[in-house]
Amino acid sequence: MPEEVLAQAAAEMLDWHGSGMGVMEMSHRGKEFMSIAEQAHHDIRELLAVPDEFHVLFMQGGGLGENAIVPLNLCGPLQGQEVCGTVTTEFVVTGSWSQKSAKEARRYSQANVVASNETDQHHRIPDVSTWQLSEGARYLHLCSNETIHGVEFQSLPDLSALGSRTPLVVDCSSHIASRPMEWDKVALAFAGAQKNLGPAGLTLVFVRDDLLDQAMDICPSAFTYKQVAANQSMYNTPPTYAIYMAGLVFQWLRRQGGMAAMEATNRAKAELLYSAIDSSSLYENRVHPSCRSRMNVPFFLKDESLNDAFLAAAKARGLLQLKGHKSVGGMRASLYNAMPLAGVEALVAHLRDFEKTAA
Amino acid sequence: MPEEVLAQAAAEMLDWHGSGMGVMEMSHRGKEFMSIAEQAHHDIRELLAVPDEFHVLFMQGGGLGENAIVPLNLCGPLQGQEVCGTVTTEFVVTGSWSQKSAKEARRYSQANVVASNETDQHHRIPDVSTWQLSEGARYLHLCSNETIHGVEFQSLPDLSALGSRTPLVVDCSSHIASRPMEWDKVALAFAGAQKNLGPAGLTLVFVRDDLLDQAMDICPSAFTYKQVAANQSMYNTPPTYAIYMAGLVFQWLRRQGGMAAMEATNRAKAELLYSAIDSSSLYENRVHPSCRSRMNVPFFLKDESLNDAFLAAAKARGLLQLKGHKSVGGMRASLYNAMPLAGVEALVAHLRDFEKTAA
Repeated sequence: MPEEVLAQAAAEMLDWHGSGMGVMEMSHRGKEFMSIAEQAHHDIRELLAVPDEFHVLFMQGGGLGENAIVPLNLCGPLQGQEVCGTVTTEFVVTGSWSQKSAKEARRYSQANVVASNETDQHHRIPDVSTWQLSEGARYLHLCSNETIHGVEFQSLPDLSALGSRTPLVVDCSSHIASRPMEWDKVALAFAGAQKNLGPAGLTLVFVRDDLLDQAMDICPSAFTYKQVAANQSMYNTPPTYAIYMAGLVFQWLRRQGGMAAMEATNRAKAELLYSAIDSSSLYENRVHPSCRSRMNVPFFLKDESLNDAFLAAAKARGLLQLKGHKSVGGMRASLYNAMPLAGVEALVAHLRDFEKTAA
Repeated sequence: MPEEVLAQAAAEMLDWHGSGMGVMEMSHRGKEFMSIAEQAHHDIRELLAVPDEFHVLFMQGGGLGENAIVPLNLCGPLQGQEVCGTVTTEFVVTGSWSQKSAKEARRYSQANVVASNETDQHHRIPDVSTWQLSEGARYLHLCSNETIHGVEFQSLPDLSALGSRTPLVVDCSSHIASRPMEWDKVALAFAGAQKNLGPAGLTLVFVRDDLLDQAMDICPSAFTYKQVAANQSMYNTPPTYAIYMAGLVFQWLRRQGGMAAMEATNRAKAELLYSAIDSSSLYENRVHPSCRSRMNVPFFLKDESLNDAFLAAAKARGLLQLKGHKSVGGMRASLYNAMPLAGVEALVAHLRDFEKTAA
């Protein structure tokens, strides 16, 4: 979280804009909170240039929740006609998040993996020309940035150019608002807010109009997009404080210059770190340069017996949370929007200093 | 929210306990947040005297979400045996929340209304001797405090004393922690935190061990109690800041003297307001005295043309959020835990003053 956002939240904690109430004390139906929610909706639409035909939903349940909520919303009757046979969904597996999504979708559909980089240790995104697309799938799901494996689609595939009419669903949880969205290629996108947009507990869903009316009968009403959209995301009590905080982040992002500026900064941050890793003989990143994540950089010390010393020396410099995910090991640096270039420079200085000491 | 809790949260916003991080900046798997979550679990167990055989789950989705999540978790195979025929669930309808719960459960079960006060305008809880209980229902659901209609079970029914072995599920969203829990009568209880325990976006579920293993195949894994319990409520990213705030409220409640003290205070607050209403000739509460809510007091001006003047005069005294729910009309005063006795005294003074003016 950007420090100035936290400072503003602290200052407004007991009295928001002279209302005599803190945000946590407001009724979600009162005019004060309604104005906060409306502003947040307005700002995220403007920030990400969300086209008119998309609804922006503020929901709960996180990315893992959406793994079920998406098929529950998209695998039901079409145009009121009963579903005949098994509904098909398609998944591109590029790391552990997309793998989990495919597994969860099997509760509700025939979830086909149309491409996978599993045999390649999730180091390279399968070329779109090899994807085994079929007709009639309800949607094709991909995770545009794999947080754990550090794999990012540098641009989204254009399914229609591949001859497919299948709607593209994008889990962009861990890099939303780090670069412009390619709306012309997307039918539905979702993201937990906790990486780049605010505190945990808020999930953003962007869903195109034409997908709003095909929920399964078993879809819980609290998670039915049509219901949520019809009630301006207030069908059930929304996570009010998380929406308020996300709204402050949206405004902060706009002050930074919006998506074009964030993309440029994030590119610069990532290039600085990757080139430090690539030019060293101690560190390595194993992801193919064509799909390296700008947000999550997993890397390894070639001598792993130095891991603890590396982390201890990092901590002494105030560099925290560098240990890699337990399923991958090694190190991982997360360069989310709130991380300034100076933070990456400090990390790069640590990499160099530690390599010298270790030599 | 108690003011001292908000003040503490504001003070810790940028640096929690000298960690150099605010709570919103912590990884949910880091030792700092883990300690916050563990403390919160510990404190809520102690505060509500939760027996060992209950799991306490910190979830997302609110009461409306639980209306689906409960049957999704309780209407699946028992002891690994496939479900034969339709699973039955039972509902006691005492207001709009229990009504919604029954409706939602029909997506997943044969939801029988075993008693309803609908023909009685939700003014009186049907006597337990009239409840149409049957054998073999997966659970009986009731809402122990109806927020909109102001109807509260003064004590929970003892189903086993009625000869039923059906597990009791209690939606206690709007009065949790206002009085001790009657665990010996309950199998599962849930509550959105936003009324008495913290900010919106956190849902507490208390589920007895023996109910953990009967989820339907279509239950989303993010909302499967067994999965959530096995992962200490960290199966998906938890709503970290909401858990932190709820934890501060748990500690505040313990400082107030715990449930015995809160119950005494809440009784005193409610009695003060109800007796002011009953003794006036302008105001009326229509709920039977045997089941009047201590948390939510709906009342009406016998001359409804005075409603706007009443609200305007209240606002001028700093008394906010008194307008009744749109489905009921009139006025509603909510006397949640964070409302001090002095707040109720101020409201009662307003009732008397306004009645004099209007006379």
